[in-house]
Amino acid sequence: MAKEITKRDENYSKWYNEIIQRAELAEHSAVRGCMVIKPTGFAVWEAMKAELDRMFKETGHVNAYFPLFIPKSFLSKEAEHVEGFATECAVVTHHRLMVDPNGKGMVVDPSARLEEELIVRPTSETIIWNTYKDWITSYRDLPLLINQWANVVRWELRTRMFLRTAEFLWQEGHTAHATQEEAEDEAKMILDIYAKFAEEYMAMPVVKGVKTANERFAGALETYTIEALMQDGKALQSGTSHFLGQNFAKAFEVKYMTKENKEEYVWATSWGVSTRLMGGLIMTHSDDAGLVLPPKLAPTQVVIIPIPKPNEEIDAVAFKIMADLKAKGVSVKYDQDTTKRPGFKFAEHEMKGIPVRLGIGKRDLEKGVVEVARRDTKEKSSQPVEGIEDYIVNLLDEIQKNLFNRALAYRTAHTTEVDTWDEFKSVLEEKGGFISAHWDGTTETELKIKELTKASIRCIALDRKEEKGKCVLTGNPSEGRVLFAKAY
Amino acid sequence: MAKEITKRDENYSKWYNEIIQRAELAEHSAVRGCMVIKPTGFAVWEAMKAELDRMFKETGHVNAYFPLFIPKSFLSKEAEHVEGFATECAVVTHHRLMVDPNGKGMVVDPSARLEEELIVRPTSETIIWNTYKDWITSYRDLPLLINQWANVVRWELRTRMFLRTAEFLWQEGHTAHATQEEAEDEAKMILDIYAKFAEEYMAMPVVKGVKTANERFAGALETYTIEALMQDGKALQSGTSHFLGQNFAKAFEVKYMTKENKEEYVWATSWGVSTRLMGGLIMTHSDDAGLVLPPKLAPTQVVIIPIPKPNEEIDAVAFKIMADLKAKGVSVKYDQDTTKRPGFKFAEHEMKGIPVRLGIGKRDLEKGVVEVARRDTKEKSSQPVEGIEDYIVNLLDEIQKNLFNRALAYRTAHTTEVDTWDEFKSVLEEKGGFISAHWDGTTETELKIKELTKASIRCIALDRKEEKGKCVLTGNPSEGRVLFAKAY
Repeated sequence: MAKEITKRDENYSKWYNEIIQRAELAEHSAVRGCMVIKPTGFAVWEAMKAELDRMFKETGHVNAYFPLFIPKSFLSKEAEHVEGFATECAVVTHHRLMVDPNGKGMVVDPSARLEEELIVRPTSETIIWNTYKDWITSYRDLPLLINQWANVVRWELRTRMFLRTAEFLWQEGHTAHATQEEAEDEAKMILDIYAKFAEEYMAMPVVKGVKTANERFAGALETYTIEALMQDGKALQSGTSHFLGQNFAKAFEVKYMTKENKEEYVWATSWGVSTRLMGGLIMTHSDDAGLVLPPKLAPTQVVIIPIPKPNEEIDAVAFKIMADLKAKGVSVKYDQDTTKRPGFKFAEHEMKGIPVRLGIGKRDLEKGVVEVARRDTKEKSSQPVEGIEDYIVNLLDEIQKNLFNRALAYRTAHTTEVDTWDEFKSVLEEKGGFISAHWDGTTETELKIKELTKASIRCIALDRKEEKGKCVLTGNPSEGRVLFAKAY
Repeated sequence: MAKEITKRDENYSKWYNEIIQRAELAEHSAVRGCMVIKPTGFAVWEAMKAELDRMFKETGHVNAYFPLFIPKSFLSKEAEHVEGFATECAVVTHHRLMVDPNGKGMVVDPSARLEEELIVRPTSETIIWNTYKDWITSYRDLPLLINQWANVVRWELRTRMFLRTAEFLWQEGHTAHATQEEAEDEAKMILDIYAKFAEEYMAMPVVKGVKTANERFAGALETYTIEALMQDGKALQSGTSHFLGQNFAKAFEVKYMTKENKEEYVWATSWGVSTRLMGGLIMTHSDDAGLVLPPKLAPTQVVIIPIPKPNEEIDAVAFKIMADLKAKGVSVKYDQDTTKRPGFKFAEHEMKGIPVRLGIGKRDLEKGVVEVARRDTKEKSSQPVEGIEDYIVNLLDEIQKNLFNRALAYRTAHTTEVDTWDEFKSVLEEKGGFISAHWDGTTETELKIKELTKASIRCIALDRKEEKGKCVLTGNPSEGRVLFAKAY
């Protein structure tokens, strides 16, 4: 039997890395800060992509593709934007290698220096708004609702698989609108899509909220966010949607003619989720036996294991069940490997997070039953072969719900209202999770709290109740509670 | 009415660019050599991707993702490989910008120089084989059948939309096998997939063949290719599949333990098709009225136009037809724009290559008919509203076949067997197309012919007939005919 992994309460961060390794989701590459997403991990990302893409298209968005490179001068056109990204840019300066005249392999050809350096896109607002300038002239060209699936690079010094890597995969939506209201509505509508996807597909409960000025995207007037809570009590910003006002339209001179023949600047949004969601998925559900995947995103939903090994009779039942499951849209694999024993296979498929395991043994078959084990609760039961496909379809649905409810219960138990500074500190250290507390609305206090405790304001929840109070640190008047947490 | 485009026989290259512009497929970006793929063009690429991805998965391949960056030293490990790509590498040398101390915006921070330069991948053999080193230890790990959808960069000096751009999108398969035979079979099987995709989906006939030593991929022992013929008589290399032997396994020390416990180097293939296929698709079918798309890859297969404009009665029929078509898996749009006249719309949808146009007018409806126009032949006919959805499903199928047959007829008419050098030159100049001629098998003669005529050997067709002869240039003995053409 393979070695067990580190337990969550021993070392959460080590546990996370071991899950990724043992479930074969990803690994570090030879390039600092960049990862290799392995086939098992990529299949989950593909499932996420497919669903998100469907949701974007359903709401009128179309996909396009813009260049990987951004001229340095473009990045500088929106002042806050460049400030936000300048320190983490991968810069292309040359376009050719040559044989080292000193005979030591290949070197950069100094004569092939670019006139203007190119930045590998950290995000594409600038190159896209420079393009929109030519696409938008009249109100008839609006709204422009475009999304792009792409790789981006942010040169992070401290990286963490899926959560923070130098290169990552994401989608970035960039929309242009005639009015402020329409752009704001778009930013909020996308937030709703993100929340729906997180909760219904990832089974990951999220708080929808708005960021404080200090935590806004570089160049945005308002940043909406979905925030999730991981099992170690730390928050994960899981997707953001930005109302950009007219900042980029002004930086790139994008104007349109209104119906009334007046020239106006265009209103903008941008929004994105990334492979970071993979980290959230892993940390929300997995346990000390390995990865746990919600059925809706599991590339393989059911694995069938012959006990102790395949034979004609077991094969016949297995193939019949597979065909019936496939007909119902369930993805299923039959593990016919004869070099591994069932116990080893059980542990292996548990590690990989396959939602349902079916064991088919000779003695069970005599009774007309098979063994069904669910990954989320690890419960096992005997179920009649007859009608097993319907039982499994229901079970997958139940597992999906159970994972969400379990995560929601965890979050509810780990969201604490506090009213004093001492309580704030002790809850943060002893219990973790979200702390709902009053804040005086100043960046100064926000930064002070972060400096003292490492907790940041994750968001001002969109559905927070009306309640005035006193700031937990300064005692100054507060307009309402905000959510604090330590975060990834 | 919008301006007509340049005709093919006036200026083929201008015609091509105008189609791309007017059908809104793509445009040049602000970054030299990089294009923006616009929503209409990207939707076609998505349709191509979806089908190819399905074909790869059906044959046991899985997707993964490897880093965008390749350490310079990796590229140098396979000698021929680096030689092939060194002169067109985008090189990342720094990882930070800073405010110009002289106050002129942002400059590269000289203190953020990378220890080792990173190359933006021109292709991923090296980074992938460096990874496979850790994934392969035993025959049980083989075959490894991995594909990646990615962007790559080759710093081309002369670029052409879709056909040759500095950045392009592609898939690259990289497989590892225990034996030479298995790797060779894989390379050929992929060639079959490419050919099937080109012919059945793109309706673009291709010749399957093998490249001469001179035209091989840098680092391959054998390069298989599909070659198509464009309407200007030039060939387009449309997809290649490489048998790499043990070159990369040796460069990156990738060995495996055989069943007999012997250590052996692994055998490799790599293969790819790219957004270049979009160029082939456009040039194979389009005409002087604009883009022509084969129904299987057309994002919108049918457009319905109310004549002269929408009203209650027309709308009712249109919505009924739309619902019936959608139920049969046909994608359809109803053009309800009241600001444009039918004639303008006809020209517009023709330009965009929508395979079938339905015109619904009051007078026609009184007779229970609608007007059906097919884009490929421009034929129009009146068809009963009753059962129109079945008529259209058949028509789409017929258009798909007709496009293929038309392109095949063109290729047949433009493939000429020649036996003398004078004939070679005159056919090449006056008629163009593929020239089937004897060649003495030497790189010297191949290069001489290219120098004299700009025609290259496109491939040695896999199904060429057995026929010895004399080289069309040197008169030396030849083992068989090969296909020459000028090429993109």
